[in-house]
Amino acid sequence: MAIISLTTDWQHRDYYLGALKGRLLSICPDAQLVDLSHNVDNYNISQASFIIKNAFIHFPKGSIHIIGVKSEETPEHPHLAVKYQDHYFIGADNGIFSLVMKGDPQEIVRIENTEKEAQFLTFPELNIFSKVAAHISKHNSLAGLGPTQKSLYRLVPIRALIQKGTITGQVIYIDSYGNVTTNISKELFESMNQKREFEILVQSNHYRITKINKNYFENSEGDFLALFNSSGLLEIAINKGNLAELLQLDINSDIRIKFHDH
Amino acid sequence: MAIISLTTDWQHRDYYLGALKGRLLSICPDAQLVDLSHNVDNYNISQASFIIKNAFIHFPKGSIHIIGVKSEETPEHPHLAVKYQDHYFIGADNGIFSLVMKGDPQEIVRIENTEKEAQFLTFPELNIFSKVAAHISKHNSLAGLGPTQKSLYRLVPIRALIQKGTITGQVIYIDSYGNVTTNISKELFESMNQKREFEILVQSNHYRITKINKNYFENSEGDFLALFNSSGLLEIAINKGNLAELLQLDINSDIRIKFHDH
Amino acid sequence: MAIISLTTDWQHRDYYLGALKGRLLSICPDAQLVDLSHNVDNYNISQASFIIKNAFIHFPKGSIHIIGVKSEETPEHPHLAVKYQDHYFIGADNGIFSLVMKGDPQEIVRIENTEKEAQFLTFPELNIFSKVAAHISKHNSLAGLGPTQKSLYRLVPIRALIQKGTITGQVIYIDSYGNVTTNISKELFESMNQKREFEILVQSNHYRITKINKNYFENSEGDFLALFNSSGLLEIAINKGNLAELLQLDINSDIRIKFHDH
Repeated sequence: MAIISLTTDWQHRDYYLGALKGRLLSICPDAQLVDLSHNVDNYNISQASFIIKNAFIHFPKGSIHIIGVKSEETPEHPHLAVKYQDHYFIGADNGIFSLVMKGDPQEIVRIENTEKEAQFLTFPELNIFSKVAAHISKHNSLAGLGPTQKSLYRLVPIRALIQKGTITGQVIYIDSYGNVTTNISKELFESMNQKREFEILVQSNHYRITKINKNYFENSEGDFLALFNSSGLLEIAINKGNLAELLQLDINSDIRIKFHDH
Repeated sequence: MAIISLTTDWQHRDYYLGALKGRLLSICPDAQLVDLSHNVDNYNISQASFIIKNAFIHFPKGSIHIIGVKSEETPEHPHLAVKYQDHYFIGADNGIFSLVMKGDPQEIVRIENTEKEAQFLTFPELNIFSKVAAHISKHNSLAGLGPTQKSLYRLVPIRALIQKGTITGQVIYIDSYGNVTTNISKELFESMNQKREFEILVQSNHYRITKINKNYFENSEGDFLALFNSSGLLEIAINKGNLAELLQLDINSDIRIKFHDH
Repeated sequence: MAIISLTTDWQHRDYYLGALKGRLLSICPDAQLVDLSHNVDNYNISQASFIIKNAFIHFPKGSIHIIGVKSEETPEHPHLAVKYQDHYFIGADNGIFSLVMKGDPQEIVRIENTEKEAQFLTFPELNIFSKVAAHISKHNSLAGLGPTQKSLYRLVPIRALIQKGTITGQVIYIDSYGNVTTNISKELFESMNQKREFEILVQSNHYRITKINKNYFENSEGDFLALFNSSGLLEIAINKGNLAELLQLDINSDIRIKFHDH
């Protein structure tokens, strides 16, 4: 039984998700549909890629992931089906695949749709992606969907920079609790740290954190803290509080770590 | 395995949906539950009917659709089970059935519930609709649920008007992206158009569109555009922008199409 | 086939739910996942307990309920698996179990997790609760999960008080429609009522209700009304209106019932 996950930026009371689920149940009656996320900000492929990257790895191999964010096909951004880490992804090649996947995927196929000239060009999830999912679900393969393609359209995420003993990173994600995830990985931190003392500086140095926690409760409620979270990235938080709101942090706000000399 | 879809106006953190799903899993253990939409504005049967009308057609025939919007039974608005296009619908006869269905349904049954006088009159989805869904799921029929009824309580939607070479329609739906759907159908447009030039006028003529797109990307990002969407109705949008917000359009705002003489 | 319900305070566009569902589908491939509620206010175990208490009873016996609200384990609040009314609950012993359950549960087990010192301490739903759910789903028992524990960490909800012929209760829940549920039970009301006349006083006596309805439509749209709802508690509402908004009622606002002498 195939698992089909759905990630979209349909936010309110649209009929789109109901229609898509109905169609999938009609043409893949054995599939198990899973809502991965439907609250992505409109057209925000950076946010969608972060969500998909951190969630898909926990699904069984062979799962099919429909990406309904900025999904309209244009000449520059064709519809693709992509096999990566034995998972299947369906969406428009608008850069999102490149943000989800490290290195080259196992297979890239450009979706050929003979009915494309027909109706509903504005709702490809319903009319194209559902059929592609049904095809993959039946054949466990991308064969027959269209010609292969060598590479993905690349978007390059902002990376943390190292300069004079300081890492300057950015907020890349803010969760339900107002905890912020940065683009500073545990590996990068450890390569710089070498058991030195350090300060994590938030909002022009007004807020400092000088240790890395293992969990939230090491600090009292209301305290600032930092830890490496389940995505392997540095997270800044307030135990039981909303850090992003309090410090008015936003996506791309700078977070710096200053390492002291031994 | 029966498919049971759920459409409600339960919006926030209510226990209603959890309770209903639990009950359905208890009495129809083989059913597949599908959230059609749960973000309908409170008591808004016009909005709910638009969502259901555009989504249910994509479900497999034989699906059961529970409508939890304005679902309280009153003497004027009894609970019905209705068969239409080989789908089953369960709800209160408050006009929503008539807005979803074109022409007469195949069968209308007034739900007789012997336990009605008992508890939970305020939560009919849990106590009545779930049992009706289980009955239909078991028997694939409305037989045994109650007496048949000839017609539905009718609500008449606002229709687009034609006057002196101009169609005056209304916004009937605003989606996640701020794209607005009007009550101007492709058929109506084409019957008037006859290859004439035309202007689509939004907000007292300040914004004009003079062609019909096939998709969004024909226009640059930020441009106004019009197309016939997957519901067969005229949609006005901004490519990658929020039209409704920008032009302060609301449900029932006028949209006019002025056709020029040959 | 085990049913696993999920209640969390993940509110927006987090990847947490997608990751958890993927993991559950990986390790309990036959489980049926049901969203009980994901819109609980952050860390609000009082609200979460009300939702769970009123929903779980409708699920089939043997269902497994994952509680992802304030789920971090601390020395005072260990992770537990609890059997109650033949349902299984998994969460942190932060008081929520005691608010959901009346009297002693059938069995309490403290979850022993040998991998605890490893990664992901901040996301126990993904790394610990999913495994516990898989274990219960396989064995239909808590045996093997850890040592039993005698009692739960107790939180005591605010109770309605009786003084001089008056019940003083509090708002404990506000639903999608702005209807408010109080902590005044039907039993308490009836024990005091004894067919006497009474006034329900809302907001310092400015609003009075003098009868108990069986349903909403007994009153005209816009009228204030009171009834005992499906949770057996006194609910104050406006037929087709938003009472909480209109009267600025909040959780813990007082609602009084004054009984008149015979």
